[in-house]
Amino acid sequence: MIKVSIIGSGNVAQHLIAAFDAADKTMLVQVFARHKNSVSHLVDEEQIVSDYAQLQDADLYIIAVSDDAIADVSNQIPFKNKLVAHTSGSVSIDILDERNRKAVFYPLQTFSKNKAVDFSSIPVCLESQNAEDFQILEQAARAISEKTFAINSEQRKAIHVSAVFVNNFSNHLYAIASDICTEHQVPFEILKPLIRETAQKVMTLSPSEAQTGPAKRDDKKTVAAHLAMLTDDNQKAIYTLLTQSIQSHE
Amino acid sequence: MIKVSIIGSGNVAQHLIAAFDAADKTMLVQVFARHKNSVSHLVDEEQIVSDYAQLQDADLYIIAVSDDAIADVSNQIPFKNKLVAHTSGSVSIDILDERNRKAVFYPLQTFSKNKAVDFSSIPVCLESQNAEDFQILEQAARAISEKTFAINSEQRKAIHVSAVFVNNFSNHLYAIASDICTEHQVPFEILKPLIRETAQKVMTLSPSEAQTGPAKRDDKKTVAAHLAMLTDDNQKAIYTLLTQSIQSHE
Repeated sequence: MIKVSIIGSGNVAQHLIAAFDAADKTMLVQVFARHKNSVSHLVDEEQIVSDYAQLQDADLYIIAVSDDAIADVSNQIPFKNKLVAHTSGSVSIDILDERNRKAVFYPLQTFSKNKAVDFSSIPVCLESQNAEDFQILEQAARAISEKTFAINSEQRKAIHVSAVFVNNFSNHLYAIASDICTEHQVPFEILKPLIRETAQKVMTLSPSEAQTGPAKRDDKKTVAAHLAMLTDDNQKAIYTLLTQSIQSHE
Repeated sequence: MIKVSIIGSGNVAQHLIAAFDAADKTMLVQVFARHKNSVSHLVDEEQIVSDYAQLQDADLYIIAVSDDAIADVSNQIPFKNKLVAHTSGSVSIDILDERNRKAVFYPLQTFSKNKAVDFSSIPVCLESQNAEDFQILEQAARAISEKTFAINSEQRKAIHVSAVFVNNFSNHLYAIASDICTEHQVPFEILKPLIRETAQKVMTLSPSEAQTGPAKRDDKKTVAAHLAMLTDDNQKAIYTLLTQSIQSHE
């Protein structure tokens, strides 16, 4: 049974702690948290440490902290030749301290505090420096998720950028739509089934196959009417750029 | 029992035909289709007409044709003082012929041929010129959907623009992400749970509350790394504009 310890107490750390705590095929040894009470609702008090010197032996240490803190935290791990993974989508594996065996354990999901997620459907992107370590990572990942992928640092950065497009940017388009609804006293509610169906459609069709709308069918009259309707210059600029982009796509 | 006839044989018409055919509280009288075999898989042969003169009495005629054809089709209806609705999100109620009582019956959804939709969860935006007609529209709409809204022509146009943002534009962002994945030999599959969760999140949180990512937290280092990673000028332009828009939002 693979022994896992988690270092960190933020969003990702908390979701990993809950997932590993519930998993049968791994053992959650310890959680390192500077402030013990930030994770005391998740694990037994005696599993929580706030001093690196108290870290015990484990097969895998997962550093789930902000990107800027990864290097520093990995320096403080009081071991050598242990398997140590970070969880960042945008940071190279190389940033980890040389004393230990480097790895990445990147769950691709948007985590909110106080919102439970079903970890089993979350893709986990794994990277290691050698094949034996990959096996350990994969066993740990499979204990909490059905979807694991071997992804190198370059690919992971591409996934991270892609995730900004499908998550942060799509959400911002929802925010713009919400603003337009508010301006015209329409409940945002009315758009929710369309938002769900738009996401659902690309589960079975490719995004290119799923593309519809005035830009796609080059309906200049509707595009002009929409631009005339928008009162915000920023909304107009986004409408124009994305319409052009759809028309020049493929 | 409200008697409904559908004029048209395209995507929206076909979904309306199937929904009204299955509904208990309305009677589907006839379907007008220029080519009978385009809808013969949906209704009995004897209900299909391809000559306006064959149209029989009904309480509501729904014109489900392309925007450009609505005016012409409404001219050809051989009745006066009947309730006639079009199904367009972007066309004013005024375009309908003066001889009949004008209305709009706009289902807000993205319809694909060959993909069944659960009509009951689709919002239907209704508009009429008087209160009695609104009651007929609402009864008809409630026979196929649980969600009906009174929406005037101005609001409907705002909804239509908003729908372009949440549907057409979000889908295009998925297409860009798919392109980036292909370029880096990453399966698009890996993004699907994130796409689903991003849509799911705004079912309970407002889009502003749900916003995360490097733009939102003003993480200049990650934004710069992402822009350096993108090889396509159009992708860079979209990344830059949407990042600025997130930062200036609210």
